[in-house]
Order: sequence, then structure tokens, then C-alpha cells
Amino acid sequence: MTATSPSPPEEPSHDPDTAPVRVAILGASGYTGAELMRLLLRHPGVQITTLTGERQAGRPVAEVFPHLASFGLPDLVKMEQVDWANVDFVFCALPHGTTQDVIAALPKTIKVCDLSADFRLANVETYAKWYGHAHKAPDLQREAVYGLSELNRTGVQNARLVANPGCYPTSAQLPLIPLLLAGQVEAQEIIIDAKSGVSGAGRDAKQANLFGEVAEGIHPYGIASHRHAPEIEQGLSLAAGEPLLVAFTPHLMPMSRGILATTYVRLKGGATAADLRATLAETYAKEPFVKVLPEGIAPQTRHVRGSNLCLMNVFADRLPGRAIIVSAIDNLVKGASGQAIQNMNIMLGFDETAGLEVVPVYP
Amino acid sequence: MTATSPSPPEEPSHDPDTAPVRVAILGASGYTGAELMRLLLRHPGVQITTLTGERQAGRPVAEVFPHLASFGLPDLVKMEQVDWANVDFVFCALPHGTTQDVIAALPKTIKVCDLSADFRLANVETYAKWYGHAHKAPDLQREAVYGLSELNRTGVQNARLVANPGCYPTSAQLPLIPLLLAGQVEAQEIIIDAKSGVSGAGRDAKQANLFGEVAEGIHPYGIASHRHAPEIEQGLSLAAGEPLLVAFTPHLMPMSRGILATTYVRLKGGATAADLRATLAETYAKEPFVKVLPEGIAPQTRHVRGSNLCLMNVFADRLPGRAIIVSAIDNLVKGASGQAIQNMNIMLGFDETAGLEVVPVYP
Amino acid sequence: MTATSPSPPEEPSHDPDTAPVRVAILGASGYTGAELMRLLLRHPGVQITTLTGERQAGRPVAEVFPHLASFGLPDLVKMEQVDWANVDFVFCALPHGTTQDVIAALPKTIKVCDLSADFRLANVETYAKWYGHAHKAPDLQREAVYGLSELNRTGVQNARLVANPGCYPTSAQLPLIPLLLAGQVEAQEIIIDAKSGVSGAGRDAKQANLFGEVAEGIHPYGIASHRHAPEIEQGLSLAAGEPLLVAFTPHLMPMSRGILATTYVRLKGGATAADLRATLAETYAKEPFVKVLPEGIAPQTRHVRGSNLCLMNVFADRLPGRAIIVSAIDNLVKGASGQAIQNMNIMLGFDETAGLEVVPVYP
Amino acid sequence: MTATSPSPPEEPSHDPDTAPVRVAILGASGYTGAELMRLLLRHPGVQITTLTGERQAGRPVAEVFPHLASFGLPDLVKMEQVDWANVDFVFCALPHGTTQDVIAALPKTIKVCDLSADFRLANVETYAKWYGHAHKAPDLQREAVYGLSELNRTGVQNARLVANPGCYPTSAQLPLIPLLLAGQVEAQEIIIDAKSGVSGAGRDAKQANLFGEVAEGIHPYGIASHRHAPEIEQGLSLAAGEPLLVAFTPHLMPMSRGILATTYVRLKGGATAADLRATLAETYAKEPFVKVLPEGIAPQTRHVRGSNLCLMNVFADRLPGRAIIVSAIDNLVKGASGQAIQNMNIMLGFDETAGLEVVPVYP
Repeated sequence: MTATSPSPPEEPSHDPDTAPVRVAILGASGYTGAELMRLLLRHPGVQITTLTGERQAGRPVAEVFPHLASFGLPDLVKMEQVDWANVDFVFCALPHGTTQDVIAALPKTIKVCDLSADFRLANVETYAKWYGHAHKAPDLQREAVYGLSELNRTGVQNARLVANPGCYPTSAQLPLIPLLLAGQVEAQEIIIDAKSGVSGAGRDAKQANLFGEVAEGIHPYGIASHRHAPEIEQGLSLAAGEPLLVAFTPHLMPMSRGILATTYVRLKGGATAADLRATLAETYAKEPFVKVLPEGIAPQTRHVRGSNLCLMNVFADRLPGRAIIVSAIDNLVKGASGQAIQNMNIMLGFDETAGLEVVPVYP
Repeated sequence: MTATSPSPPEEPSHDPDTAPVRVAILGASGYTGAELMRLLLRHPGVQITTLTGERQAGRPVAEVFPHLASFGLPDLVKMEQVDWANVDFVFCALPHGTTQDVIAALPKTIKVCDLSADFRLANVETYAKWYGHAHKAPDLQREAVYGLSELNRTGVQNARLVANPGCYPTSAQLPLIPLLLAGQVEAQEIIIDAKSGVSGAGRDAKQANLFGEVAEGIHPYGIASHRHAPEIEQGLSLAAGEPLLVAFTPHLMPMSRGILATTYVRLKGGATAADLRATLAETYAKEPFVKVLPEGIAPQTRHVRGSNLCLMNVFADRLPGRAIIVSAIDNLVKGASGQAIQNMNIMLGFDETAGLEVVPVYP
Repeated sequence: MTATSPSPPEEPSHDPDTAPVRVAILGASGYTGAELMRLLLRHPGVQITTLTGERQAGRPVAEVFPHLASFGLPDLVKMEQVDWANVDFVFCALPHGTTQDVIAALPKTIKVCDLSADFRLANVETYAKWYGHAHKAPDLQREAVYGLSELNRTGVQNARLVANPGCYPTSAQLPLIPLLLAGQVEAQEIIIDAKSGVSGAGRDAKQANLFGEVAEGIHPYGIASHRHAPEIEQGLSLAAGEPLLVAFTPHLMPMSRGILATTYVRLKGGATAADLRATLAETYAKEPFVKVLPEGIAPQTRHVRGSNLCLMNVFADRLPGRAIIVSAIDNLVKGASGQAIQNMNIMLGFDETAGLEVVPVYP
Repeated sequence: MTATSPSPPEEPSHDPDTAPVRVAILGASGYTGAELMRLLLRHPGVQITTLTGERQAGRPVAEVFPHLASFGLPDLVKMEQVDWANVDFVFCALPHGTTQDVIAALPKTIKVCDLSADFRLANVETYAKWYGHAHKAPDLQREAVYGLSELNRTGVQNARLVANPGCYPTSAQLPLIPLLLAGQVEAQEIIIDAKSGVSGAGRDAKQANLFGEVAEGIHPYGIASHRHAPEIEQGLSLAAGEPLLVAFTPHLMPMSRGILATTYVRLKGGATAADLRATLAETYAKEPFVKVLPEGIAPQTRHVRGSNLCLMNVFADRLPGRAIIVSAIDNLVKGASGQAIQNMNIMLGFDETAGLEVVPVYP
């Protein structure tokens, strides 16, 4: 990832009068697949022509996602049934681990945004350690560009394969990378306490995600062992210019969408919480999706629901020399499908906000 | 209300190249106000120029509705501060009972869609009986057109003042009016069991609507005494050609948005459940927002969340000679602000779906 | 079922100074199993000595139900490992259809309360029709007593095998049976609109019961085809003295516990809603668990959460000659495990409220 | 607070054959009042004889808390109507700030457990700073004993006035005090990230606590400025033997009950996470309400719902030399009314678990 490339592209290179980009969504039967459909249906420059789902092949979208019944989407098919000659761009929303072979087998002329974790870790040894098997497409891994849109625009612009960031890593890195680049926070002592809605766990039937198991409660999981930790560390290490580890504790809570990250940092080089806020405000001043809230106002996940927004703010801590950073995203939008579309827009020269001008839904 | 006017207008008369329609939202600090803003922000032909809120006057939208902070909306003002010369269209989202004086005082050149209950009951005596005081603007009441969009297009098209239907009445009347017109259901025995999310109760601080009081439970309220009963009866009586009463039992349940109406009817004239389904399918065949689901599929409020859709279906009952009708809307959209915008679109000659092409948000 | 046996037993025959009754819960890894444990742990006369769970065998309760970790319960075992000589009473909480063989194989000296649907339908042909296979233990079926505790005490008292009523049937029959016996409602036109929390669907991993699929929405299911319909009809037919069908529409809504039944009836023989209320008030005057609320107060499921209570009330309808009955229970307590313990108490001569003196948990 | 007094009293001094203790609950119309009633109704040694509620005076409990309707509780009265000669023990559940005058005016023969914040801060200057006015009863403040039951039994035993700890402070101090006493964590760098259900905000009608405002979201509040911070600091400073500050960030989330505290600490003196776990396990080995979970198992608020339990555990952090402590309570029970009853039990010589043998309600 190049350090920063903060300016949104001024002149989209895609000609809106040309034929729409033909999009395939691989693994369309999960929540991120549905969310890609919801947003792409209102994208002025694309047409969803292919939806795959191995187990759901042959079924209409109306059965798999009744809320999308009335929008004229194609039926789901098996991957082997796809005629790739009719596909210009692929969103890959397959389960982690299954993606490497699939993308390796695609025609090289097709640009890809992969929403799985398969290409996020640049170091294939780190991948092997955290995912329990050797990476199956190390060449592709070298080619893949990490798609934290606002902070890696140039990289994404030139990429054929973008690894879309994880939901937690997006919420954590957007505020932390600029602060590490500015040298305002200690690199070796970052504590990220994150709270997520249940959709982040996917749509597969698991007892742990039943309504009765999730409602009216909260608990941490994957303490010190969640796979998003090395992804966060990768981005922060690069920004800090030194290898670092983070404390990262995700919590599951009774809401469908949203991630809130409360991050505890030690200030560095005499910086104050106000300085941190100023750095973020400056970094994101022209960004359509990343907003630093007025002083003293805490981000709420409710206020980004359904949108591609990331809200953030910085607060002085009672502990001297420390600050508290709060960031909020919709895990399915900025934390997955929204950012994926943002990356597609950058890759294809669309206006970066195309299809993403969704106002949050509240209440 | 004229009986039916089912065809959507083919040629919008509004010229999209002209200046945008300048819209005022009176009473913008409630949930329907926020929802008007959310949807109108993406309407291609209007601009929100005025927001009023007596108690919130002087505050920016960012404070009243933080989820709308980043969309450049004007600050809230008092009604007395509004320069009506700069307003082309008014959405009135004031509390019930306070609206009559306000609308009576508006310049007659301004078209109005009123989301309150003040002008819904054509009979001012019925109004007086249910609302406990004489109607303050009986002349306006005579002028007002009931805005059940799909079933009263011609009326709405020619109206200066539209009374936007209540949420429950919308969910109940959309399936029942065509069936009564078709003479397929008994008029005198209609039983409507409705379930609503909490946003229908508004945003005012009331103990009964606290999270702790609403979560993990359900209860009926206003049994045989809810003010939406006479509104439903008014529309159904007209369709049936005879005065009728309905059993109407609303329930409050722990969700923010959505109304599900489960309606129990006695079949008439040899009609079957399949006949009823066919009638509705035909009535709404070309409608963009009203969808009759495939046989056997039950509507769910989740599948319309955030959208202007109404889903419906008909099922044979175990009791011989009876059928069960199920309809689902988002109470804040098709049940309030969405239908209000649909009515504005009809009144002003916009494409009827303008600003309403919102895909449901799920999960 | 005998028509009524309304008086609670005055003199418990169980000697509290004797050794505790040794209880086995078969199928202890589901929600009704957990609820049996929660309540029996505070029962003064029993000891839980055996818990079975075929898939969970070998695991401690702490792993299967962490909320029960600190109460000294035995580990789960396979059914084949149970030494029946050490078991005095069995609660059978196995899945529907699997119970018949299991109970048939138990020593005849053990009394049984079965929480499944296997022995609820007295007519084995009705069973075969609704469950898709011939009943495997028709002799046992003839022996089984339907355990709607308040209305069948004598039967339960003398039973060796009690079929514990379903959750919906409990909520519907408790108000309707006395009214049919009193001849105050028309038998052939009963409409039951029921709303249930998700725990009624069990703890197995099913996509439809994921948090994301259930939250923020409501929908009906099994319209005119739910297996609880024949169970309700069986009880009501007996009370009415004539065969009858009911309209029964269950709805799934986002709460973990609770059933609300809103029942629409036609009045008979000049009865008024007040008469119905009086009948119910008289029927249940001395009952510890069934409460008729003051006039005009609607039952809420929140107000019975965690308790064995059934709240009910009757309201005049707007439709002349009709009334609306509302009843609320906790589906896991009065609708399952609580009533099962109540039946055990009756069968064994305990005080009927033993272990059930649980105050509702609110909020 | 004396440092520790870990052994539960072996021989209760209260004679269960004597007349029940007559209990008054002042301010009974809030959630903590209701919870006191729920639990005390099953306490073998007390009788609730007096309930006060200034605004609700004259109303029966059935109207204020319908879930408690059927338990024979007295009507609410005004404070001035109470005959203190008939009261042996007072629970004071009045709003913060109003309690000092009330308790000062009570007969000195009555023992009191105060659930407000009024007597929690031993230093009246700290009180004045955080609550904005001088303490009105500094003498009483000196007399008051901080009722963190497990860690201050001797103090509570001899107290006439117990200041019941706040909900957040209970969840944070129970794990941290033993660790500071053992010198195993750095005192000056404690970071507490806490998540609370909505009932902690009380039952007063506030827009911020409406269902629509709380559901489907999470946000922090009172960052670095919450009044529970000085209460936590008071207890931890005493245990550490040095003044300290804490980072304390509470979050509001969509559940009715429960607090989860995730606490980040730096290890001291070579201690490991396992050492911390061992310290807590030893400290609470014999406690009926405080449980250290098996290694690797994270506490969940769901697993304590409705009970007086506190679950806790310690995890190694990815950051070297650090550990993560997780603790869970029901804010209305161990965080308020349950601990208050526990304190009453200690003060009056009851068995400490009397009235508190409530098994958690799950799901």
C-alpha cells in the first residue's frame, strides 16, 4: 500500500454514455452478496448480469433474498455455467479459503474485487500461519492491492485484483493510519475494542448466531486470536514504519449491522487529542465518505446504517498522555460491499460515489 | 376518493431541466420529517430549502438527526421565520390537531401534502367524535384529497391539499379496497390484526416507548378504539358502497420500522382465495410499489424495510369460506413519508418513482 | 380430557421430608431442556440426576448452557447410558417424532411428562395426517393424558404419561375452552392470530432463525397449515361438543420468549364481552397462574417473561356481536417447561406451584 | 473499605422463626425498585410493607409495574405518609442528589441501603466536583460504608448506612481490586471499556432511550467524564495504595439488562495472565455469586441475566506484558438491587444468598 493518496480523482475516465459494465457476483447468496446487489442496482454505470451460488444454483433471487425480488435480477447459477466473455468485472464474495483457486482460474482480462480474506495478507507466511494452510495463489497474492480506498487510491486505480479490507480492519485503520503516519500515537501500544453486529458472521446456519443466542447480550470472542488482527497489524506497521502488534478484542452484540471501534492510544511527541482530531480532519477533509465529527460528538453506528460512511472522532482520556478514538461504519457497506463498489469505481474510472449515494436509514 | 385510477401516469409533465421544486418540511424534527429528508435528498427534481421545528428552531440538522449531518441541509427555523415566497411545495409533518390552522394560513399557491391525521376524515363530524374537538378548517377539509396513491391517482393529480393516509390504513386498504370493489369479500365482517414497529409512535419522549418497555414483548393497544379505525372504515365503506365497521387491533412490537396487517375475511359470491389473489395481481400488475407475492409466500416487513414497497398475498383459510390476507409496508415510507413523496410526484407531474427508487435494506 | 376440574388440590400427598424425586430430562440440550433445569433447580422436592443429549453426550452442562454452569448439574449422557433404576420421573424434551419409541421403551414404573407433540393428538389418524407417518405407539397414545393443567387436573393426577400441550395451544385454549363450555362463543368461527418469540423454533441451527433474519421484522408462517391447529381444534371441539376448525395464523417476531394470542370470536346466545370476561374470571379465580386482568387492560408478553403465568382479558369489538380475547404466556414456561413441571407436581402430589414461584423478569 | 473480607459468614445471626423484617422501598417506581420487589418477594425473611413514589403515590403496583400485579404488594404512597415505626429496613432507590436529605431525616434506628450515588464517594470534595453541589449530609457520608459485598463484608456487617455501588463500578472493581492488592497489574494505566444495557439509564421518559433511538446501534457516551469514573478510582486507589485515574468508556447498546466490562491492563512484577486468573480464582473460590470461568471461556451478559452472578475471566493479550480482563453482570441485579439485597442480608445476619438464588434466564 502506498502511504497515502488522499485526493479523490477529479475526472472519471469512464464514459457514462458507453454500454454498462457487466458485473458478476460470485457467491451471491450471502449478506455481502445481497448488499452488493442492493447498491449496484442503483449504480448508473453497471449491470448485474451474473450471480453464482453453488448450493443455490437454479434458484431465483426472489427465493434467496425476497427483499430483492422485484428488481429484475438474474437467477443464480453455478460457477461452471458462467460465460466469462460476458463479464467485465467480478465481485468475489466467496467464503474465505475458497477464493484463491477461483480467481486464479478467471480470464486475466477481468478485473476483480475480492471481498474474502484470501488476498489481504501480503505476506504468504503470515497467511499460512493464521489460516492453517499454504496460500494457493502466491503470484496473485503479490499482484493483489489492498483496497482501503481513501488511503490507497493510486494502488487501487492501477490494480487488476483488489483485496477488499475486512470490516474490523476498515474501522480501525481509517483513523489509525493517518495518526501513525503523523507520528502522533505510540505504535506499540494500540488497544482496539470493537463491537460488531451479527451480519459480520455471515448467513450460514450456526447455533451461535440464532436470535435467541444473540439477543439481549454481548460477549467478546476471538480474544487475542481473531484473524483480523494480523490484517490490522499489516496496515498499521506499514504506516508506523516498524512492525507492531495490536490488542484487538471484537465483541458480538445484538444488532444486524454496524461496527464501532473504540481505540485507546498513547500520545507521542507532545501531541494532544486535539492534534489527532486535526490530523484526521485534514486527512479526510475532502472525502465524501469519511467524516470527522464536531468536537465532543461520539460516532454511533446507527448514524451510518445502510450507508458507506465512516464517522470518527478523538477524545482526550482521563489518563494523562492518552487519547480515545471512536470510529463507526456499517460492516456490510463501508466494511464490505460498499467499499468494494468504491474500489470498483476507482478501478474503472467511475465517479467514486457512484451507487454509494445512499443516505443512512434511521431509525 | 374516486373508486380507482390504477394506471400510473405515462408522461410526466414536470420538465426536469427547469429549476428544482423548493420544498419545505414543517415539523421536521420527527421521524417522518427525517424520512422525508432521507428520500428527498435523492430526488432529482426537488431541493429542501426550509425545515421548521418550533422547539428545535435554530439547531442544525446535524444535532437533531446526526445521520443526516453530511448532506448540506438547512438549519431548522420557526414557522414564523419562513419566507413562503421561496417555497413551492409543503410537507406538513406536524402533530395531529395542530395542522389545521397552519395549513389554513399558508398561501393558496403552495401545494401541500399533509402527513397528519387532520384532513384524512372527510366527515367533520366523524373527526370531531374521534379527535374530541370541532374541525378548525372545514373548508380545507372539503378540499383535501385522500392520498392513497395507487387507488386515487386522478384525485391526487388535481389536488392542492392531499391528506396522506395513516400507516395502518395504508397497509389495510391497499389489499381490501380492490377486493371490496370486486365484490369478493363480505363488507361487514372484516378483521384486521396489525403489528407495528415503534417509530409509528413518534419521537417524543414517552415512557411507554423506552427501549426497556418495548423490547422482548408484544401487546395490543387501542383495541376497538384506535383512531385509524374510522379512517379505514371510510375508505372501505366507499369501496363497498355501504357503511361498514371493521375489527382493527394494532399491536406494538420490538422493531423500529414496519407494519404487518393480517386480515381475516369472509368470501363472497363464490370467490376463492385464488380469486382474491388474482384480483389483487391484476389491480397492481403495473404498479412499481405494490407487489402481490407468488402463491404461498408470506410477506415479511423485513423485505420492505426502508423502501416504498407494499407486499401482499392471499391465503385460503382452514375455516371454509374464508381467506387470510397479509400485507406488509415500512410504516415510515409507504406508510408515511414515501407515500407523501409519491403523492407530491403525482401532484407535480414528476415520475411517480422519483426519489423512491430505494432498494430495501436487509438485514 | 374431562371438561373441567378447576380446584387446585388442597392437600399435597407428597411428603416433603422424604427423599427428593430423581428426575431425568431426555433431550436436555434444547431450550425447553434448559428451562426445565432452570426451574427444577429451585424445586424443593426434586433432584435432577440425569440429563441426556445424544449429540452432546459427554459434555458438561457448563458447555452446553453456560448460564447453568454454577449449579452442580450432571453431565449429559446418551440415553443408552441411563440407569433407569435411579430415575423416578422423566421429562421428555426430544424432537417431535422421536419420542414414541423412547417412551415406549421406558420402564412402566416411571411417570413421564412428554413435551413433544407425539402424544398430544388423541386420534392417531389425525396424527398420521399431520405428521406424515403412522403413530408408532398407539397404545401409549391411548393412555396419554393431555396436560392442560388447570382444565384437566383430575386426568393429570391419575396419569402415568402426560402429553404436555404445545405453546400456541396453551395460549389459545386457556381462554377459549371455558367460553365454549359456557356456550358464549360461536364454535365454528374462531380466529386466532398468534405472535411468538423465536425460542419456540428451538435451538437447532437454521438460517431462518438467525439474528439477522429475525430482527427488525415480523411475518406469518404455516398459514392454515401449522401443526398446532389440529391440537387446538381437538381441545376446542371437545369443549364445544361438536367438531370444529379454527383459523390459526402464527407469526414469528423478534423476541426470544413469549406468545400473544389475539382471538376474534362471535358472541353466542346474547353474551357480551363482559360476560366472557366474567366467565374467565370465575373459572380462574383461584388459580395461581392464570390471571384475568382488570377491565380494559391488555396482556403483554413482557409481563409474564420467565414466569408460569397466563394473562388474559376480553374486549368488546367494534363489529357488533363480536369480542376480542387476548392472552399472553411465556412460551418456554407456561407454554412448555413450566406447565410440564406443573403437571409433574399434580402427578406426584407436590404443591402445584412448587418450583414455579418465579416472578416475571422485567425489563 | 477494608481491604478484603473474603469469607462468607458461616452462621447467620437472624432467626428465621422470628417475624419477617419489614422493608420499605423508597422510590419504588423505577427499574431498581421493581427489581428489589421481584427479588424480595422470594426472600424468606422479609416482607415488603412500604413502597413510596412521589409522582405515583396512590397507584397500585399493578398499574406501575403490571408484571408484579399478582403478588400482593402494597400501593405506592408519598414519603410523608410512611409510618416509620413499622419499617425495619429501608432500600433507598431515589434519584441521585435527592437522597441525602431523605436519609438524614430517617429515624436512626432504621438500617438503610442506598442505591443512589449520593453516599458512594467518601470524599465530599470529590462529590461536589462531580455532582455540582456541596454534599448535604457530610456526617452521614462519613458514616456510610461502601457496599461492594464480597470485598467489604466486615464493613457492611457493622454498617447502619450502606452505599450500594454503581453498576459499572461493580463490574470493574470486582476483578481489579484483588489484582491491585496482589500487585499484579500496573495501577496507573487501567483502561475499562464497558457496554451497558438501557435499563441502567432508568425509566424516565427520555428521547435518547426510546426504542427507535437505541435499537440496532451502539455508541459511547460520557467519554472521560462519566460519574462512575471517580467511584471506580476511589476503590482502585485504595487497593493500589496510591491515587490513580482510569480510562473508563461506557457504551449504550440495545439490550435491556447487562454490563460487560473489557479491561485492558499492563502486567506488573512478572505476573502473567494465568497468574491474574489464579488470583481471582482464589479470591472468589468460595463465593456464591462471583465465578471465574474456565480458561479461555469469555463471560457473556446473557449468562447472568436476572441473576446476582458476576462472571469473569482473564486472557493473555497479543501485546506483550499485557492482559485483558472480562467481567459480566446484570446491571439491575449484581449492579444494583441484587447487591443491595446481598448487603441487607449481611447487615441483618441473613444467609447471604437469601432471595438471590435466582437462576439466570436464558434465552
